[in-house]
Amino acid sequence: MKELMITTSSCAREEIPDLGNRYLTGNGYMGVRGTLEEYGRDQLVAVNLAGIYDRFGTGWREPLNAPNPFALRFLSGGEPLTLPEAAADAHRQTLDVRRALHSRETRFENGVCLHIERFSHMEQVHLLCLQATVTAQSAATFTLEAAIDGDVWDIHGPHYREMALDTQDELLTALGTTNEGDQVAVCAGYTLDLAHTRRDRTDARKRIAAFAFQLRAGETATFTLTAAVYTSRDTQSPADAARRAAQAAPAYATLRTQHIRCWEKLWERANIEIDGDETAEQALNYSAYHLLSVAPRHAESLSVPARGLSGQTYKGAIFWDTEMFMLDFYLAILPEVAKATLRYRIDTLPGARVKAEQYGLRGAFYAWESQEGGYDACSDYNVTDVFTQRPMRTYFRDKQIHITAAVVYGLWKYARWTGDDSLWREGGAEVLVEAARFYHSLLVRRVESDIDELRDVIGPDEYHERVNNNAYTNEMARFVFEQSVEVTTRMARQAPDDFEALERKLRFKTEIPRFTEAACSLKRQAPDAKGVMEQFDGYFALEDATVAQVRARLIDPREYWGGAYGVAAQTQVIKQADVITLLFMLRDRYTADTLRANYEYYLPRTEHGSSLSACMYALAACAIGKPDEAYPLFLGSAQADLNGGGKQWAGLVYIGGTHPAAAGGAYMALLWGFLGIQPDADGIRISPRLPKGWQGVACQVVYRGQVVQLACGTLADGHQGTAF
Amino acid sequence: MKELMITTSSCAREEIPDLGNRYLTGNGYMGVRGTLEEYGRDQLVAVNLAGIYDRFGTGWREPLNAPNPFALRFLSGGEPLTLPEAAADAHRQTLDVRRALHSRETRFENGVCLHIERFSHMEQVHLLCLQATVTAQSAATFTLEAAIDGDVWDIHGPHYREMALDTQDELLTALGTTNEGDQVAVCAGYTLDLAHTRRDRTDARKRIAAFAFQLRAGETATFTLTAAVYTSRDTQSPADAARRAAQAAPAYATLRTQHIRCWEKLWERANIEIDGDETAEQALNYSAYHLLSVAPRHAESLSVPARGLSGQTYKGAIFWDTEMFMLDFYLAILPEVAKATLRYRIDTLPGARVKAEQYGLRGAFYAWESQEGGYDACSDYNVTDVFTQRPMRTYFRDKQIHITAAVVYGLWKYARWTGDDSLWREGGAEVLVEAARFYHSLLVRRVESDIDELRDVIGPDEYHERVNNNAYTNEMARFVFEQSVEVTTRMARQAPDDFEALERKLRFKTEIPRFTEAACSLKRQAPDAKGVMEQFDGYFALEDATVAQVRARLIDPREYWGGAYGVAAQTQVIKQADVITLLFMLRDRYTADTLRANYEYYLPRTEHGSSLSACMYALAACAIGKPDEAYPLFLGSAQADLNGGGKQWAGLVYIGGTHPAAAGGAYMALLWGFLGIQPDADGIRISPRLPKGWQGVACQVVYRGQVVQLACGTLADGHQGTAF
Repeated sequence: MKELMITTSSCAREEIPDLGNRYLTGNGYMGVRGTLEEYGRDQLVAVNLAGIYDRFGTGWREPLNAPNPFALRFLSGGEPLTLPEAAADAHRQTLDVRRALHSRETRFENGVCLHIERFSHMEQVHLLCLQATVTAQSAATFTLEAAIDGDVWDIHGPHYREMALDTQDELLTALGTTNEGDQVAVCAGYTLDLAHTRRDRTDARKRIAAFAFQLRAGETATFTLTAAVYTSRDTQSPADAARRAAQAAPAYATLRTQHIRCWEKLWERANIEIDGDETAEQALNYSAYHLLSVAPRHAESLSVPARGLSGQTYKGAIFWDTEMFMLDFYLAILPEVAKATLRYRIDTLPGARVKAEQYGLRGAFYAWESQEGGYDACSDYNVTDVFTQRPMRTYFRDKQIHITAAVVYGLWKYARWTGDDSLWREGGAEVLVEAARFYHSLLVRRVESDIDELRDVIGPDEYHERVNNNAYTNEMARFVFEQSVEVTTRMARQAPDDFEALERKLRFKTEIPRFTEAACSLKRQAPDAKGVMEQFDGYFALEDATVAQVRARLIDPREYWGGAYGVAAQTQVIKQADVITLLFMLRDRYTADTLRANYEYYLPRTEHGSSLSACMYALAACAIGKPDEAYPLFLGSAQADLNGGGKQWAGLVYIGGTHPAAAGGAYMALLWGFLGIQPDADGIRISPRLPKGWQGVACQVVYRGQVVQLACGTLADGHQGTAF
Repeated sequence: MKELMITTSSCAREEIPDLGNRYLTGNGYMGVRGTLEEYGRDQLVAVNLAGIYDRFGTGWREPLNAPNPFALRFLSGGEPLTLPEAAADAHRQTLDVRRALHSRETRFENGVCLHIERFSHMEQVHLLCLQATVTAQSAATFTLEAAIDGDVWDIHGPHYREMALDTQDELLTALGTTNEGDQVAVCAGYTLDLAHTRRDRTDARKRIAAFAFQLRAGETATFTLTAAVYTSRDTQSPADAARRAAQAAPAYATLRTQHIRCWEKLWERANIEIDGDETAEQALNYSAYHLLSVAPRHAESLSVPARGLSGQTYKGAIFWDTEMFMLDFYLAILPEVAKATLRYRIDTLPGARVKAEQYGLRGAFYAWESQEGGYDACSDYNVTDVFTQRPMRTYFRDKQIHITAAVVYGLWKYARWTGDDSLWREGGAEVLVEAARFYHSLLVRRVESDIDELRDVIGPDEYHERVNNNAYTNEMARFVFEQSVEVTTRMARQAPDDFEALERKLRFKTEIPRFTEAACSLKRQAPDAKGVMEQFDGYFALEDATVAQVRARLIDPREYWGGAYGVAAQTQVIKQADVITLLFMLRDRYTADTLRANYEYYLPRTEHGSSLSACMYALAACAIGKPDEAYPLFLGSAQADLNGGGKQWAGLVYIGGTHPAAAGGAYMALLWGFLGIQPDADGIRISPRLPKGWQGVACQVVYRGQVVQLACGTLADGHQGTAF
């Protein structure tokens, strides 16, 4: 397995947000942004926690950032050695992707050299570990202020109405209490390997242990830090738990070894080799790194937010991204994580029922932005008008009804890939029936027609609001109707007791014929003479402008393209793959000709304003035998976080962060696109369609409980089309 | 009958647009804005023609302004005597409302006194007549440049691609050819009663006859002008027709006598007396003046635009205003005009069918902004964003489906008021069946429901777009279903031949049971516990802000309150009477309690951003016994044009002009509100509910072919509740 290090010598202010994403470390329990130790809230430092949220006032409800125990400040002779203010001769920030170690090395002008390594412990997910060494060229007096910084970065905060700061038995503790009454405890212990004095103090929302020591010329001091993070969602007394964990933690070197060993095991499974294209290989492994870093390996029922654990963007909520774009990776590499994300959906069914009721519907209307319990964090106002600074009414929460189908599709993918029917039996079938009920309760029919319709929806392409019969939405709803019949029929046959229990609970038997009927009568966007499916009723009648033309109409680069009056709204320019996403997801149902016609039609009309877009076109391009056209689209997805950039703004709302769905999409493009995998009862066949320059590909997946080598070309090693 | 003169001494630039409306003269064929003779396009001069339209390029299609034959310019000693530049000692502009004479009298600083009287001939509707006298204090040389000014004011022009200018036999002629190929001819002849020389010339788009003469001190010269206007819609050769008419016209004094006699007859019918409230009396008679001035008395099939004949605002198009707010006046005063406006709707049924087809619907979808042939001039973009200067997609054309019901309602009112069934037989029944078909083809039903719905509509309150089950719209559609059954059933019985002819044409018999069913199953917005009907699904859940609060949120006073993001859109603040309009129109169906509850709920939430609003609330206030609350609302309507002001802008689009629907609404408030008329087979009973200060009311109406005196209080003269 090749090393994979990413480095930068930049600490330029304008790059700080991007670097924070790119150098992120995490372990599924929390994500630590790749910021330097001397940074604070203004530099978007965050120890972002999974699955715990808070609302301040009437602001958006968003995930908590824990008090940051990695806040260090070195002073030499009273002068702070902090970037970017202090003059430095050399500076380097590094992420060792294979070991998930973040480090920085800075040589200041005064000859002091600072090296700090840190990680989010991959096995003991409550632990954050750090080791710093400081070397002086000439004798000097140092102060090292190690803090737990409770003055955290919040988008819609402050989320801590109280922050208790304390030292007990030399352990610093910060105990934050949120507006909603949750608690977050961080406890940190330190070692310093040479004579020092220590004075602890509280400074506003920081608890600081200040170590004073002297170094002779050429001497090095080594400092370690082990912090534990617990919340009231983990245990009744998070402060005690954090203290115990910090006290019990072994030495840094031991923790580091455990951590690295854990990652080694993950890489044994997840590593991807591409002979002939180091760029793609690195981008894919870097994508896998992010998906592994945010995977809830510690949880039975938890899912992955759309921006991973990189901050509060998108409210730390679970979107369709997980089921549609990340799940394939988890199914292939960490099936238990895939299961945990789906259990999260099963467990949040009550929230989906409540939401359906709120809209006067039956069944399960899953949250567009799902927090714990299935609470929909999606506001009615998600975009700010750049011209008036007013919030704009958006309809993502109300009308993006395809979310429920995505949950069903995820459950279906799980069963199909793993061969494990347990999720259907353990609540999945209930979700499925409630999903079918939801869509059935939404169906309308013109009194003069016998065609059912889904009107006033938003499809994947969010630039066109309130449309009728979005092809993607209708077909995914049809899929739900069909699955509800198929799965429950099979269940009645194979697990009659489970079926009867479900029937007693839901009383749905009599509805099955109606679901069958709806699957037939729901409107289809039939391909036109050229084979192109209309994205929604009336789409073809919209102005057929190019993406460049539409972009040229922008007055402000940050203005929203969609909504009622956005530059794209009355044109055929779309934000992201929509019909093409459908054609991939339900790929068994469409011919290559249909795919080709739609690919050619929609690609030039797609802005790719979402990171979920390019990978779908890459998959389509592969499927129609154009891997070289697929390649740049694939690479864009694979490098989404490695290169940074991307859309940072929707109107005036910050939407930066990591893009695990783009990472997952790139992985899908590898598997389903370039390798052309075809899993079935006998195993996985591959039909490689490699882009120029790729001499060989090798990776492995867990399929139906077995590890399967997938390899082709120079790396096939006699395994071409390897199955069980 | 009391004299009624309105006068102003102002010629301030900023008042010119308002004065142009307030001093308008017209005869149904054309309207002449109340601008001074020396004004041109920049002062919004217009001889606005009824029923003839043109489009320039991709601009809005709008009515034509004829070349203006009232363009006069006096020069004394070479110095122009033109306002507002020239210094004047005194100036007065007067409209003699009873005689429909426009005059201006200006005494310039140099002692020259100018008096000009003019009118739009009420009998010979092609003629425009003017007499000017000029008196010099001291001897002076004068030039009078009498022009036909072809450089007309256009909003989306120029509409004349050619303008032929000429003099033949001393008659000036301007013959304009429009972009669409129509012709407009204006021919003018002059007299001047003292020695002069005349030189004709063409200056750009003006044909000018320049008269040079001398006046001794104290001497007066009298100049007359008779112009004729014809278009290619009137005759094949409008130039010849105009010339013949100008040549054949008798002397000014004769024309004037004819004109005044015609108006006298109209006032015999239309005059309204209110003892104790001169303000209201004047406002009502002034309102009647405008309705008479724009009434198409000369035409068999023509209707009245929403801004009368005051210019190109709202594209000179016919809106629901005519049937809902003006028709009651015409029915009462000029039933033949009422019939002509409804024949216009019958004759434009083909246009309504074409529009329905365009939207994939059956039957008749009447134009929201109807021009000749029922062409819908309504653009998809009717408002300009004040912040971006971009056109905003509006849905008036697509979704204001209540227009078709307004046409049916007009036909129904005609038959009910006049007792004359002929319109039903002469095409009205066909309109009715096609209207029922239209609404039937729009009905949708949730698959899980047996209630029909009308979704995604705009009701009278345009600030809330794309709503479901607007109460007004649903009930008016139900009314159409019911009438379609009732009228055709009666027709089958009473006029079986007509019925069979209609059946042969439409093949609708089998649909009648479906219309009956739809009348029952269409969703009702049932009154809530307090008796309030929800304006549309979800209205009550909107923010309950006051009008003042919402107004305070405006950033730019001209910004649009509606649309997707306007300040009112997500609140309960409405533009105009909506539920209250319904409760008046179908007043037999609702109790006083319902009316009271809704009046009290909706009034404080209504901005009255439309001139169609206040009169509806005035009617409601009367009906619940609150005439004093009604009074200011009524007066606002009655004085809409007398006081000017009102909304001049929707976004960046100019919407000024006269408000005949407000005038009609004020008249409705008098009849149905304060007088409380109850017409039935035996005649008209009245139940007066007079506001404070009104001692008596007297007016007359034509009801079922007979003139009926309506009088009460001091003016009753023994006629209280007079019927046949």
